[in-house]
Amino acid sequence: MAEEDKGFNIDKEKNFSEWFTEIVSYAELADQRYRLKGFIVHMPNAAITEKRMYADMESSLETHGHKPARFPSLIPEHYFAKEAEHIENFAPNVFWVTKGGTDDEFEEKLAMRPTSETAMYDTYSQWIRSHRDLPLKIYQSCQVWRYETKHTRPFLRDREFHWIEAHDVFATAEEAWNQVKEDMEMTYDVLRDKWGLPIIFFHRPDWDKFAGGQHSFAADALMPDKKVLQLPSTHFYGQNFAKSYNIKFLDENEKEKYAFQTTFGPAISRIYAALISVHGDNKGLRLPFGLAPTQVVIVPILKADADSTTLLQECYDLQTQLRELDYRTEVDDSDKRPGSKYYYWEARGTPLRIEIGSKELEKHELTIARRDNGKKETIKQKDLETYIEKAVPEILKTLKDQTMKWFEGNTHEATDFEELGKQLEKGGFVKVNFCSREKDGLKCADKIGEAYHAEVRGTKFIEFGKEERVANGAKCIGCGKEAKHVMYVAKAY
Amino acid sequence: MAEEDKGFNIDKEKNFSEWFTEIVSYAELADQRYRLKGFIVHMPNAAITEKRMYADMESSLETHGHKPARFPSLIPEHYFAKEAEHIENFAPNVFWVTKGGTDDEFEEKLAMRPTSETAMYDTYSQWIRSHRDLPLKIYQSCQVWRYETKHTRPFLRDREFHWIEAHDVFATAEEAWNQVKEDMEMTYDVLRDKWGLPIIFFHRPDWDKFAGGQHSFAADALMPDKKVLQLPSTHFYGQNFAKSYNIKFLDENEKEKYAFQTTFGPAISRIYAALISVHGDNKGLRLPFGLAPTQVVIVPILKADADSTTLLQECYDLQTQLRELDYRTEVDDSDKRPGSKYYYWEARGTPLRIEIGSKELEKHELTIARRDNGKKETIKQKDLETYIEKAVPEILKTLKDQTMKWFEGNTHEATDFEELGKQLEKGGFVKVNFCSREKDGLKCADKIGEAYHAEVRGTKFIEFGKEERVANGAKCIGCGKEAKHVMYVAKAY
Repeated sequence: MAEEDKGFNIDKEKNFSEWFTEIVSYAELADQRYRLKGFIVHMPNAAITEKRMYADMESSLETHGHKPARFPSLIPEHYFAKEAEHIENFAPNVFWVTKGGTDDEFEEKLAMRPTSETAMYDTYSQWIRSHRDLPLKIYQSCQVWRYETKHTRPFLRDREFHWIEAHDVFATAEEAWNQVKEDMEMTYDVLRDKWGLPIIFFHRPDWDKFAGGQHSFAADALMPDKKVLQLPSTHFYGQNFAKSYNIKFLDENEKEKYAFQTTFGPAISRIYAALISVHGDNKGLRLPFGLAPTQVVIVPILKADADSTTLLQECYDLQTQLRELDYRTEVDDSDKRPGSKYYYWEARGTPLRIEIGSKELEKHELTIARRDNGKKETIKQKDLETYIEKAVPEILKTLKDQTMKWFEGNTHEATDFEELGKQLEKGGFVKVNFCSREKDGLKCADKIGEAYHAEVRGTKFIEFGKEERVANGAKCIGCGKEAKHVMYVAKAY
Repeated sequence: MAEEDKGFNIDKEKNFSEWFTEIVSYAELADQRYRLKGFIVHMPNAAITEKRMYADMESSLETHGHKPARFPSLIPEHYFAKEAEHIENFAPNVFWVTKGGTDDEFEEKLAMRPTSETAMYDTYSQWIRSHRDLPLKIYQSCQVWRYETKHTRPFLRDREFHWIEAHDVFATAEEAWNQVKEDMEMTYDVLRDKWGLPIIFFHRPDWDKFAGGQHSFAADALMPDKKVLQLPSTHFYGQNFAKSYNIKFLDENEKEKYAFQTTFGPAISRIYAALISVHGDNKGLRLPFGLAPTQVVIVPILKADADSTTLLQECYDLQTQLRELDYRTEVDDSDKRPGSKYYYWEARGTPLRIEIGSKELEKHELTIARRDNGKKETIKQKDLETYIEKAVPEILKTLKDQTMKWFEGNTHEATDFEELGKQLEKGGFVKVNFCSREKDGLKCADKIGEAYHAEVRGTKFIEFGKEERVANGAKCIGCGKEAKHVMYVAKAY
């Protein structure tokens, strides 16, 4: 008999950091023994989920008129250096390629892309000639590399990470703004509605926008330790990059104009970190059915004294039947006890577990246990397909309802600076009155940062030109001057 | 009125090199203006097809028990150097990362993976402990980088290319050999049967096997200039890498053994080059329906004096209907003449073109032209779905039948050295009697290379232990000694 599995059991709310570290190893999500800081092996249990996440997000992008492309991963330094603010921000985080083969030292060094603006826009300037070439909506699914000096954590902050970046070009500012809105809608459609992951979009303050852009809107998720994690962001670049990279077009009156640009960057590996953290419980992972690496596990309940051949064959037949329906299915025929097998597959987030013993075999029944709510029921074998079809949306609903409720219960308010400190102790978001989203608000943000190690995340996005209203005469929590915005403050990853 | 499109018209058989260069640009497959040798932009028309190719091949791998993973793209030099033959072969082709950020010079330089053996096998040695951990069948879809000193050509030979690599581990040599066979079967299933691309698998001679492996089997396709192009290869590594990377397991009797390994490497971007070359004709691309970036184009036939609103609306409605069925569909509502539009979409390989004029509108009919065979017919609008379902396999059959016939007509024979030269002038494969597939055959291969710039590709794979029989008393075409093999010789890319 193999070693017994004692199961995964860590209090996620109380010891989230330990929970995360342990589940990554216990559920075989990443191997961190690769001897290069911030470079991890995405093991099959993570890679299968990430592949499904890519497919969902790419499908949404394509439905909204984007086309895939693949740009080079190496960027000659002179391309990289064209937008001043951009290079200033990214240069400290670049891995540089300086040699080829055994001898050749390059005259110009090459950046491994930390993001692809500078790899793409020179080419864009050659593709775009006329208003007929617009809009141009392109995405690429790829890896990017950032020489992070901060502490790295698997999926959350790696030096190599897996993302999608969409780079769109328009003739008018209005169309570009509509794209920013569409990016936010896609994010809600996929992250919240398909994957059950609650987020809020914030209009980031000026000092926290993307280097080289004009406005950034970023989705914040809440991790179980009630710190926020930035997920997809969408950026309005205006004509900034167009001017640096000479992206111009002739309008309908043959007049030359600079184009307007936006970008949208869902970092799949990072969203994956949020997904497993938010849905997991003390027993390990819980996953929406569509994203689970193994969707159904079949456990034969073997009696020591009985003949197991028929029972095992039944399990394999059922596996074949489910695989033909494209459900990722495994039979656990290892020599562990059933209890150990339950722990094992629960920790991996397998949404459905089918148990077959002699009783079930005899009556043509199956016992099914659900990972999302722990409920168990016995059904007729012939009803299995119908059962699964019905269970899939129910599983998502359980996960989504629980996390939405939890998420919504974690926004607090503070009316003075001391109160802000107390509210931040609770975790989650704290709404405060604030002087300015522009550069002049930075000193109040710094004051909050120094006192509480918390960040001003921005104003909650409702719609363009509309935001939460500040009460008459309200004062900024930092400087006491007139407040222009309701801003959200939080401790962040 | 926009500039008229004169269409693509290059004799593919006569001027293949020009055909290839021009179609890559005309059909907007790659942008080669990126200022880094061998790094190209895969434009949407190529990226969409490559994405479908990845999906087909990944699906086949998963059906055959492989799971996806993602290993780091950077390899510390000491990992890279563990297998002597491997590093000797690959070191001249490595891009080296030597710096991080603005200052940090690394103590150990990092290789951008030219292939992933050395990134994966140290981790494999930690994953594999017992016979219960085997077989291990993992693939990753990724980019690899090779500092090629040869002339680069888009898709055919880039310094950055897009591939899949499967790395499998087994307890016994027999299972490993079965995997090699399965790899070849998957290649035939996907390349030949799904994409209509004819290939032959050759058992490569010893001097042409993968560095560090024991036996290599590689698929050769034939390009329109009748030179061969190596496509997926599968390698039997035996225990070579297992010994260098310490991949051991305890067998059922608790005895420690080295594992057996195989790899399989379909290079998607290179297969794409073969696909477009083999199926294309003088008018441009022809593509199987499933792989075409645009599958259906709708062309409104507008009369200058008539109201176009209803007709255009009909086109957009049809586009919506087809998109809902997941067919990649476009309406060409540009201001070009219909003839120019036909040329344009023909060159891009769009399998179906629907024309709607006032006659069709009135009668609820559609005129459909097929790219594969140029035939045009008028159908009732209500029959469109049925028409497409029927056309999809027919299109593949046209392409496959034509290319298979052409491929099979290009194998010749030669019985003496002079005759070999003449036969090689015809292009394609030339079968010859040959002394040895082992090291001692190299001098005859070199003699052929020097005289004719041609390569010995190996023996045709039929099944293990069986190959084409040499006639009694036949002599090697190179040295005149006893011939042991029927070998295929060809000019190669």
